[in-house]
Amino acid sequence: MSAPASRNHSEHAALFSQLGERSAAPTIARLMAMALETPGMLSLAAGFTDNATLPVDFVDDAWRAMRANAAAANNEFFQYGTNQGRPALRRMLAERIVRADRLETEPDALEPCVFMTNGSQQALYLAMQVLCDPGDVVLVDRPSYFVFLEMLRGLGIEARSLPVDANHRIDAPALGRLLDALAAQGKRVKAVYFVSYFCNPSARSLDEAEKNSIATTLAARGLFVPVIEDAAYRELYFEKEWPARSVFALPAWEAFPKLYTATLTKPFATGLKVGYGICASEDWRKKMLHVKGHHDFGSANFNQAVLEHAIATGNYEKQLARLRPAYHAKMRALHDALAEAGLRGRGWKWDEPSGGLYLWLEAPRGLDTGMESAFCRACVEAGVLYVPGDLCFGDAPDRKFIRLSFGVLGAPDLREAARRFASVAARF
Amino acid sequence: MSAPASRNHSEHAALFSQLGERSAAPTIARLMAMALETPGMLSLAAGFTDNATLPVDFVDDAWRAMRANAAAANNEFFQYGTNQGRPALRRMLAERIVRADRLETEPDALEPCVFMTNGSQQALYLAMQVLCDPGDVVLVDRPSYFVFLEMLRGLGIEARSLPVDANHRIDAPALGRLLDALAAQGKRVKAVYFVSYFCNPSARSLDEAEKNSIATTLAARGLFVPVIEDAAYRELYFEKEWPARSVFALPAWEAFPKLYTATLTKPFATGLKVGYGICASEDWRKKMLHVKGHHDFGSANFNQAVLEHAIATGNYEKQLARLRPAYHAKMRALHDALAEAGLRGRGWKWDEPSGGLYLWLEAPRGLDTGMESAFCRACVEAGVLYVPGDLCFGDAPDRKFIRLSFGVLGAPDLREAARRFASVAARF
Repeated sequence: MSAPASRNHSEHAALFSQLGERSAAPTIARLMAMALETPGMLSLAAGFTDNATLPVDFVDDAWRAMRANAAAANNEFFQYGTNQGRPALRRMLAERIVRADRLETEPDALEPCVFMTNGSQQALYLAMQVLCDPGDVVLVDRPSYFVFLEMLRGLGIEARSLPVDANHRIDAPALGRLLDALAAQGKRVKAVYFVSYFCNPSARSLDEAEKNSIATTLAARGLFVPVIEDAAYRELYFEKEWPARSVFALPAWEAFPKLYTATLTKPFATGLKVGYGICASEDWRKKMLHVKGHHDFGSANFNQAVLEHAIATGNYEKQLARLRPAYHAKMRALHDALAEAGLRGRGWKWDEPSGGLYLWLEAPRGLDTGMESAFCRACVEAGVLYVPGDLCFGDAPDRKFIRLSFGVLGAPDLREAARRFASVAARF
Repeated sequence: MSAPASRNHSEHAALFSQLGERSAAPTIARLMAMALETPGMLSLAAGFTDNATLPVDFVDDAWRAMRANAAAANNEFFQYGTNQGRPALRRMLAERIVRADRLETEPDALEPCVFMTNGSQQALYLAMQVLCDPGDVVLVDRPSYFVFLEMLRGLGIEARSLPVDANHRIDAPALGRLLDALAAQGKRVKAVYFVSYFCNPSARSLDEAEKNSIATTLAARGLFVPVIEDAAYRELYFEKEWPARSVFALPAWEAFPKLYTATLTKPFATGLKVGYGICASEDWRKKMLHVKGHHDFGSANFNQAVLEHAIATGNYEKQLARLRPAYHAKMRALHDALAEAGLRGRGWKWDEPSGGLYLWLEAPRGLDTGMESAFCRACVEAGVLYVPGDLCFGDAPDRKFIRLSFGVLGAPDLREAARRFASVAARF
């Protein structure tokens, strides 16, 4: 009867909540729209993984095993799971962090602290929902994960960057001054967030001294605020794991409420979307789980069962062992092509990453790489897409950085994309 | 180093947001905990589906087809999908509602209005987030879906019941008086919500006249507030579909913003957790999608691909065709056992449902069936669990109702559970 496809002219507008009024299209959507209009575009923007590496065989193994055992298991993997997630999977995740961080805790004691989410993104959202009201401040790394920053804006939370020095390392004295200034302004710092392993976007990892310096600077001011350590890329190292332990293991952080978030599917199959959080602060964790009960009362049980099988059989580790050299080689393809095109001679700077999916380029002084810049438009016209670095700053956006991902494209396309990018850079 | 399993005594407490402070354990959790302490408990409480009916064969079909086509499809089903969900799946869902509601819209025109979610629960959460601030009022059916009511409490939203008459039908004059009273109190009604097909918990369906009477009563007061029609059980009829069309098709609702929510996995495999919303109001839908971008930037693509295959091949319909007589028979087993135990002679009343998963019993006058009642405790002690009806009211909870689910148990267990229930009822 009515014509539901577009709002009927006689249809009244809804009145939105404050959150609804704040909501805005993701900045990157404009870039993606531009990309779609350009045939043959090579995207170094998306943080996707490489389709060729996706583990059809390991999911097939999992499904065959589940199917063979279906009658005995009463098909339980197709039934609702619990809000918190599958205990056996959570037990294995507890074991993994005990091993990685050399914790003296028993995995069984840590298992109740683990909760499964729709990607690690949901764990971050739940953390922010239960901690922050609009106007509260969250400290974030500089640069930081831009989807997290957009989420903060959506929730009305103010991001303030953890100051870094000229070498992009945490600058504790400057952090002290920032905290004092925030206190003088009456701002409430409610949490601190950082991507500490092969950071999206900077590819940097924090060492233990840097993490500790954040804790001691906060503690000196009595600010024992919750810390959220985003370890999404921790297992995606190329040759050896980054040696720093997480905040769970560091005495400097002992008195702080702590949440560690990570994903199982970024290094496996992103289409399965299984992430998790580990939080030993019972009151905080329970509140996140109560809100998760309202979001969805539990992440897809089937997907968790597939990951449980993959980890239990060792297939998950085998997949990681495949990915590491594959991404290493792709990083080298992009990195070398940019270097060989003479970008460094033109004043571009970047470090060679030892893990993750990104190169983080600093443009020559004075060159604006922002979303609306002539340089960005020229790249789109040349058929290569990047993430403008200015999206990745919680405050005082710096418009001279660029995030390039070597996740999606194969080596030949990465080299061609680098060639296109360098040809634009040569003109600016 | 630290002992993360329980909060360290030296660990400081987090400061929570207002939402965090409001969050509370689901009421039903207490009941479930009691249940776990009772060996041999038969649960008529959980709204789960029957494990024996779960479609291992159809998921196997889907996976074989996906695997066979994996190389040609570049393994796309294991990659991130889009925030809104798979277009081909959304197109088929548009087609389904066009057919069910006899809409004059082209499915292609409706496809952009469909968005995929983590179960229909997430669509409801997104709707409430973007529409309501704490203190706002949402009108709900009486009784209503208790997880929705708990979500409203978590968001600080006030639920007020749509008044019903002695036959449990919408009482439009009483609704008019309620709206006038709310206006006089300065309360903002922001939306109206109802479960219109084989309602959880009442098993009732709304007819078109009832739906229309809500619209005209609101419209008479200029309250063209968004309507959310929860059709989770629409396809779970026993013999024939409920004839009322949804609000999308009813001229009385034409001027209202409308969201229709449903689930694909309740009648398939709840462990896959795929739901959806259909919303033709572009501004409202976009805001929900922006917030979804912050929650998880898209529901698991793989799960959507499995459902897409099941619908495209007709396996989804075949599964529904299996479920309908199976649930019908289970409803009869529970219903007949209660009737044969003489419950009606003792003053208990209930209607025989024609779809869904629930019987909604009204206790004899004066009998309290609430969570903390002697009757509820006696049932737990007798080894049978129900959902106290008082959880299912947005306001003025009525403590004489009981929700019994015939979803999980097989017929013999349903009969035994009925016997236990009736033996308790005989003592009260």
